[in-house]
Amino acid sequence: MRIEKDCIGEMFVPDNVLYGIHSLRAKHNFPITDERVDHAIIQSYLQIKKAAALANEKAGTLDKQKSALIISACNQLLFSNDYSAFIVPAIQGGAGTSTNMNVNEVVAQLAMRISAQGGKSATEIKPNDDVNQSQSTNDTYPTAGKMAMLKRLSPLLTSIQKLVDTLSDKAEEYQSAIKVGRTQLQDAVPTTFGKTFSAYASMFKRDLARLKHAEKVLSQVNLGGTAIGTGINATEEYEAVVVPALNQYSHLSLHQAGNLIDATQNSDAFVTISGAMKSLAADLSKFSNDLRLLSSGPQAGLNEIELPKKAAGSSIMPGKVNPIIPEVVNQVAFETIGNDVTVTMAAESGQLELNAFEPIMFKSILTSEQHLARAIDTLVDNCVSGITVNTDYCRDEVEHSSIAATVLSPLLGYEKTTALIKEALATKQSAKEIVKQKELLPDALVDNLFSPEVLTNVSKVKDEQSVAGSTLN
Amino acid sequence: MRIEKDCIGEMFVPDNVLYGIHSLRAKHNFPITDERVDHAIIQSYLQIKKAAALANEKAGTLDKQKSALIISACNQLLFSNDYSAFIVPAIQGGAGTSTNMNVNEVVAQLAMRISAQGGKSATEIKPNDDVNQSQSTNDTYPTAGKMAMLKRLSPLLTSIQKLVDTLSDKAEEYQSAIKVGRTQLQDAVPTTFGKTFSAYASMFKRDLARLKHAEKVLSQVNLGGTAIGTGINATEEYEAVVVPALNQYSHLSLHQAGNLIDATQNSDAFVTISGAMKSLAADLSKFSNDLRLLSSGPQAGLNEIELPKKAAGSSIMPGKVNPIIPEVVNQVAFETIGNDVTVTMAAESGQLELNAFEPIMFKSILTSEQHLARAIDTLVDNCVSGITVNTDYCRDEVEHSSIAATVLSPLLGYEKTTALIKEALATKQSAKEIVKQKELLPDALVDNLFSPEVLTNVSKVKDEQSVAGSTLN
Amino acid sequence: MRIEKDCIGEMFVPDNVLYGIHSLRAKHNFPITDERVDHAIIQSYLQIKKAAALANEKAGTLDKQKSALIISACNQLLFSNDYSAFIVPAIQGGAGTSTNMNVNEVVAQLAMRISAQGGKSATEIKPNDDVNQSQSTNDTYPTAGKMAMLKRLSPLLTSIQKLVDTLSDKAEEYQSAIKVGRTQLQDAVPTTFGKTFSAYASMFKRDLARLKHAEKVLSQVNLGGTAIGTGINATEEYEAVVVPALNQYSHLSLHQAGNLIDATQNSDAFVTISGAMKSLAADLSKFSNDLRLLSSGPQAGLNEIELPKKAAGSSIMPGKVNPIIPEVVNQVAFETIGNDVTVTMAAESGQLELNAFEPIMFKSILTSEQHLARAIDTLVDNCVSGITVNTDYCRDEVEHSSIAATVLSPLLGYEKTTALIKEALATKQSAKEIVKQKELLPDALVDNLFSPEVLTNVSKVKDEQSVAGSTLN
Amino acid sequence: MRIEKDCIGEMFVPDNVLYGIHSLRAKHNFPITDERVDHAIIQSYLQIKKAAALANEKAGTLDKQKSALIISACNQLLFSNDYSAFIVPAIQGGAGTSTNMNVNEVVAQLAMRISAQGGKSATEIKPNDDVNQSQSTNDTYPTAGKMAMLKRLSPLLTSIQKLVDTLSDKAEEYQSAIKVGRTQLQDAVPTTFGKTFSAYASMFKRDLARLKHAEKVLSQVNLGGTAIGTGINATEEYEAVVVPALNQYSHLSLHQAGNLIDATQNSDAFVTISGAMKSLAADLSKFSNDLRLLSSGPQAGLNEIELPKKAAGSSIMPGKVNPIIPEVVNQVAFETIGNDVTVTMAAESGQLELNAFEPIMFKSILTSEQHLARAIDTLVDNCVSGITVNTDYCRDEVEHSSIAATVLSPLLGYEKTTALIKEALATKQSAKEIVKQKELLPDALVDNLFSPEVLTNVSKVKDEQSVAGSTLN
Repeated sequence: MRIEKDCIGEMFVPDNVLYGIHSLRAKHNFPITDERVDHAIIQSYLQIKKAAALANEKAGTLDKQKSALIISACNQLLFSNDYSAFIVPAIQGGAGTSTNMNVNEVVAQLAMRISAQGGKSATEIKPNDDVNQSQSTNDTYPTAGKMAMLKRLSPLLTSIQKLVDTLSDKAEEYQSAIKVGRTQLQDAVPTTFGKTFSAYASMFKRDLARLKHAEKVLSQVNLGGTAIGTGINATEEYEAVVVPALNQYSHLSLHQAGNLIDATQNSDAFVTISGAMKSLAADLSKFSNDLRLLSSGPQAGLNEIELPKKAAGSSIMPGKVNPIIPEVVNQVAFETIGNDVTVTMAAESGQLELNAFEPIMFKSILTSEQHLARAIDTLVDNCVSGITVNTDYCRDEVEHSSIAATVLSPLLGYEKTTALIKEALATKQSAKEIVKQKELLPDALVDNLFSPEVLTNVSKVKDEQSVAGSTLN
Repeated sequence: MRIEKDCIGEMFVPDNVLYGIHSLRAKHNFPITDERVDHAIIQSYLQIKKAAALANEKAGTLDKQKSALIISACNQLLFSNDYSAFIVPAIQGGAGTSTNMNVNEVVAQLAMRISAQGGKSATEIKPNDDVNQSQSTNDTYPTAGKMAMLKRLSPLLTSIQKLVDTLSDKAEEYQSAIKVGRTQLQDAVPTTFGKTFSAYASMFKRDLARLKHAEKVLSQVNLGGTAIGTGINATEEYEAVVVPALNQYSHLSLHQAGNLIDATQNSDAFVTISGAMKSLAADLSKFSNDLRLLSSGPQAGLNEIELPKKAAGSSIMPGKVNPIIPEVVNQVAFETIGNDVTVTMAAESGQLELNAFEPIMFKSILTSEQHLARAIDTLVDNCVSGITVNTDYCRDEVEHSSIAATVLSPLLGYEKTTALIKEALATKQSAKEIVKQKELLPDALVDNLFSPEVLTNVSKVKDEQSVAGSTLN
Repeated sequence: MRIEKDCIGEMFVPDNVLYGIHSLRAKHNFPITDERVDHAIIQSYLQIKKAAALANEKAGTLDKQKSALIISACNQLLFSNDYSAFIVPAIQGGAGTSTNMNVNEVVAQLAMRISAQGGKSATEIKPNDDVNQSQSTNDTYPTAGKMAMLKRLSPLLTSIQKLVDTLSDKAEEYQSAIKVGRTQLQDAVPTTFGKTFSAYASMFKRDLARLKHAEKVLSQVNLGGTAIGTGINATEEYEAVVVPALNQYSHLSLHQAGNLIDATQNSDAFVTISGAMKSLAADLSKFSNDLRLLSSGPQAGLNEIELPKKAAGSSIMPGKVNPIIPEVVNQVAFETIGNDVTVTMAAESGQLELNAFEPIMFKSILTSEQHLARAIDTLVDNCVSGITVNTDYCRDEVEHSSIAATVLSPLLGYEKTTALIKEALATKQSAKEIVKQKELLPDALVDNLFSPEVLTNVSKVKDEQSVAGSTLN
Repeated sequence: MRIEKDCIGEMFVPDNVLYGIHSLRAKHNFPITDERVDHAIIQSYLQIKKAAALANEKAGTLDKQKSALIISACNQLLFSNDYSAFIVPAIQGGAGTSTNMNVNEVVAQLAMRISAQGGKSATEIKPNDDVNQSQSTNDTYPTAGKMAMLKRLSPLLTSIQKLVDTLSDKAEEYQSAIKVGRTQLQDAVPTTFGKTFSAYASMFKRDLARLKHAEKVLSQVNLGGTAIGTGINATEEYEAVVVPALNQYSHLSLHQAGNLIDATQNSDAFVTISGAMKSLAADLSKFSNDLRLLSSGPQAGLNEIELPKKAAGSSIMPGKVNPIIPEVVNQVAFETIGNDVTVTMAAESGQLELNAFEPIMFKSILTSEQHLARAIDTLVDNCVSGITVNTDYCRDEVEHSSIAATVLSPLLGYEKTTALIKEALATKQSAKEIVKQKELLPDALVDNLFSPEVLTNVSKVKDEQSVAGSTLN
């Protein structure tokens, strides 16, 4: 056991651990969740500590040996993939100070141990004066949070792109599979599964665009602003180096925000990424609802498509198979929308020079990013890619659909067509037959009007290029 | 009384009214709110009916006389500013059909009356076959909704710009007024009111950018898609003319979406504008909270700024004056955030080829737009523009602030500075004095470190250009 | 024009109006919505002013003549149903002070006018000293708000009861109409429409119970607490009389809260009523979704029930009829759930001795109450009461349903039954026939197992009494 | 490796594991979160399996030996506290079927192993036919979920009670510590810390009452309803035994719901518990905000109370200490409010005979319960219990407070008192002195009016009993 001291008092810390008094206090103060700070945040923080050490060295405020030791320690931690020394719980008070100090303490301790390797006398590395030099929690913590979000955004973007591609493939596969359209859950004029899948692809492209925009927003960091954005205790030389160095270490493209006071106290960047995910969630949920509707059955449902069978559906009803993949996606969507309310309330609650509620924003956003990416992956792999369409059944439905007689309306007028459709429904005949029977229009014209091409207006399909042009959002 | 008929049955309609059976049914079916469809939607709808009449005429499917009568009727309604014939309630089922039919019926009836002026025999104009020709509720209603939102967005953008300008003026006015910074509501290193107001301005610039982006998103319409986006019953000639004509009539810059099936069934554009307003709301609420905090007092509060006195604050406590303007802004923010949940749920609930819940989305969004614009106007005019800073009191606070001794940390180390600040707080001396007394640093250096310029790090202020560059969002 | 003065300064007020300077300032300060304070609040406020006048008179702090004049003025306003003098907008800052002062001013002015009737010289009645005597906005405003909510809760309770009754009637009407059950939108074991409607009735009974509980919660008022709950400036005699007098005037059953400090600053009563309405909204939305699903068709849907036809459904698709009534109910549900977020945020934002955000809570709650009641009314009258079941079609579906073979599982085992059902689905035979064919069980037993009574387990239906006992919530 | 088979196909399962094919499929299908099903749910499920085995045995449908083996296996799992065989992820599709089947498979496998102990030949125990006999996921899963919630509610109730007690102690400790009241963040008439703490205690008592009510609601289960509430495949003998047996095994007081169809498909019980926690969250957040406000400082804040110092507050600002415990509570509140939106959306999305989205409801509710309980624990232990009041400073503030002159208003009138207070503020004199100076009232009366007892209206404090009586909610 070693004794450590801070402005509150003293505390025993086990001798073999890398963390120190501040980390330990946090563990005791915040026993809310067993979940620790996300590894993506710790990893980003270690990259920040490296960049700061380099920048301080260049500024002449940290000696070369110390800087090298700090960088060594960070590298060792980054490469080891061992996060056991980072003991601070994910939900924490203190605006992230415990997270920062946990990193400062671990890096300092490890750097000292490295300096003492081979029997040398240890160089003293101080958590605050050395590892945290020119930094504050208030600039490093939001920066690490944004870096973590950016890293986790990347697989999400990949997943959405895969969904778009799979849907586009499905659209091609079922390009001419005609089906009944439905508005307000009532039979409407026909469409094709090509158009149906292509519309989903088009929608998710906009989600991609929204998240790519959020990516740019998150790239603006307040690193260098220190305590409240005035950059107190940071030199100009440091400021010039730290962000470029961080980009080199992290392979990200961060920029220092133009107004650091603003960037330190306001959380709208987090509301932006969370809002973009909320949009994605609503879209995913609508899509999942549609899949569940269209695959309802197998006998007393719409039965237009079949989803891949992924599990026995019931412990009591033998042979039942359920749309379990869309169902899990729905739930991730509800979770994401709830998380967005959490993020919004936390952002709204910022006061004066800081928002103390970033920890819950980070946890909520990183969770939504991960769950959405994984939900989309299972949706693509275990559901969408294997969807089959009951093409014959769907074509048959269109042929018996009275509402398809809408095509007659420009020729016969709305009122007469209404009467015709009512008659068709009442007599269980097809509208097409009745028109022919009554010789209201020439047979050839009727046949043409009721052809799939005219009914679904194939010529109106916009080419891929213009669809691509529509992804603005 | 005249008798009108639809596919449900017959109904008496007063002879003198312009609306017809469908409008009347809606009034009876949806007695939820006394609020009728927003005038901005009706106005936009009338512009659509004009554009459609022109396009149908050019396509040769509507004869010239009818087209002229329809356009005349629309113009008369637009210029009269009399909305009494539009009786459909704002909250309605039917995905907007009642709104569209109300417009169709009123325009048709008025057009017929115009045709009969001067004793001529009336030309029959049919609501569905003529006024609604080549259109469906499912393409015109979302288009009218987006047009209404665009029209109402314009004053909101103006209001935000005015807020940004006023805050920039305040930043200049109090550029060098030094004040205590506060993080987590505890005293932190100093800043200036110049920086404070400038940070707010910077934040609201991003709101402007977000809403301008939403403006572009809303400009993509599905007009021409008719029932489900396949464009059934619309000619290619009509399609080519209708959107450009609508832009001419409405002075907007609308574009037809690339994928009309998608644009007809998906509501993410509404989630986008609502989400951007939610961000603005969170920012406005945080700003209002800060104003209320900083002006708390007059005796037992922070008392750093004074808001213009706008009303006697209490019916029982004489002389009390309250921050009533920020308070009303907070409430509009809460309303907007609640509306965003409504919009998200409605968007998520779309099914297959249509989202039937656009009416509540439109109502929520148009309300948020209007309330936010008006709230910002009163915030600027009755509060922000008249804020005064208690500069002497604030400077005095900085001079007594122990935490300002943070500037000594790079020279004395974190630990020694901690001890110093604890001593200052305990003995009620200033840290500066203690340092001098103990001769820890040369007096001149101490004076320099504690000068407002160094404390607030004036050199770190980014120039206006880079601030402008930071409005990405 | 007369000149009025307050602690801010002077203002011209039109001579003929009853309101005064404070009301006018509010109108200028809060131009957010054109909607004025809800009449139910004003009405309740007038009852409070009467009760306070009486209590002050009994306490000997207000002379009898003034008290009589105040009560006369209130009565005249209450009976006239003329709210034109109450000009304060519904969304307002100032924690309700403007609303209270508007009432104080109007009552004082009218009381003076009454005193001067018949050429007498007017008795001076002061808005603060006389009409507002022993009161503060901080106790009268929440009291008036709760009274308004209680008054509006009453029709909502009636509407829900009507819905429960109508559903119970439907349950009886279709008691033995067998139908396919569906879990996760996939065919499940059979049920009856009797059970289906009865389950909805049972659910809505719990909503009734939740709202009746909220009614009790709202009956606890802080009247008598004055400024912050300490009761400053109110006499004990006043305290003893005011709430009983108010009950007499309002026909409500209000109680003074046990801890007036608490009751003045905390808003959980509003969160409770709003939360109970949110529950109701979720239930209504689920029910509406089910109605829309079950009535989907008329050809390519589930088509199990028919909703009354209430409007032509489409401007372009002739003969289409949509489930417009459930759709409007869904939207009111989404609105109510959004309003609940608004209320929660406003409640969370209270600070120290007061919550300044009651106006938006009141507006949100009163709106939800009204819209829900009216939505349920139209749901009952225009939809539920006229639902018909396609009983033959539904029975036929059950007979062809393979999953009904679940009844065989206890006899044949889960595995063998699975194989049987798969075979039935693949060969499009009924499972019942296959079992008989294969002679797996005696024919009589099979017939018995597949009888509607056994399939839907009629004996398991709990009697009405136990259902009633289950409404705990 | 062993091969297992279900209606989808075959799969290799490691020979040594207790789970089977269904569990393994779930692991592959739902790779959303690394978090597995909550142990409280598994534990409850094992108790259900025991109760069902006993009930089936009594009904004569499960032979005694099998029943004993199943009960043994459950007991072994319950006592071992080893949950490694329960591999299904917390967020899952399939309405809980994977969770149920995981339990069925593990219990069956273990029961068979137990039967084979001592070299005996194993008795075959089937997951569906034996362990799941007379049950469905659709009745056991919601029952297990409610049981888990009830178990986790208990520590939450204890924590709240502890908070109430601690606040009551603080109220007694600082009963006569006078302080400035604040409404709308502006100075208001005085109060005492006794009243302040007592008001918080009173508020949290209502939260206790709300959650105790939710406890009753959760005690109604649909066990026995099997697949959709009709009780198909369950005998009457089983029905009579299963719930009482479960109560014996679990020490809970569950009741079978009166309408099992309703109880199987509707989720309002979950909305109720979630809503009660949302109320608690709003109350906790308001309370935390107040603590942070009142302890703001140490120099440029309100500085009325001191929270226990629990950590060095800043990595850059030496000696800074922050209100980290209330901050973490705020964040748990935001999380809980977000979770409530998730639960509401999931509940609203139920369809027909089932709500497939219970897994996300269970996860959200169980998380909120745990986080709230733990947050309150740290709030009590690390913050509230150690709060000290700066009594001298607070008394001094009252003495200088002009607004205290409100007590003069009944004697001097509102207008004259306004002038007096304005003069006091302008001349920085106390209002009391001015009144004496101007001889507006006799000195003795003035002294009495400005005494702490009169200012805070001590006699108005309600006794503890009436406070207790006010906890209705």
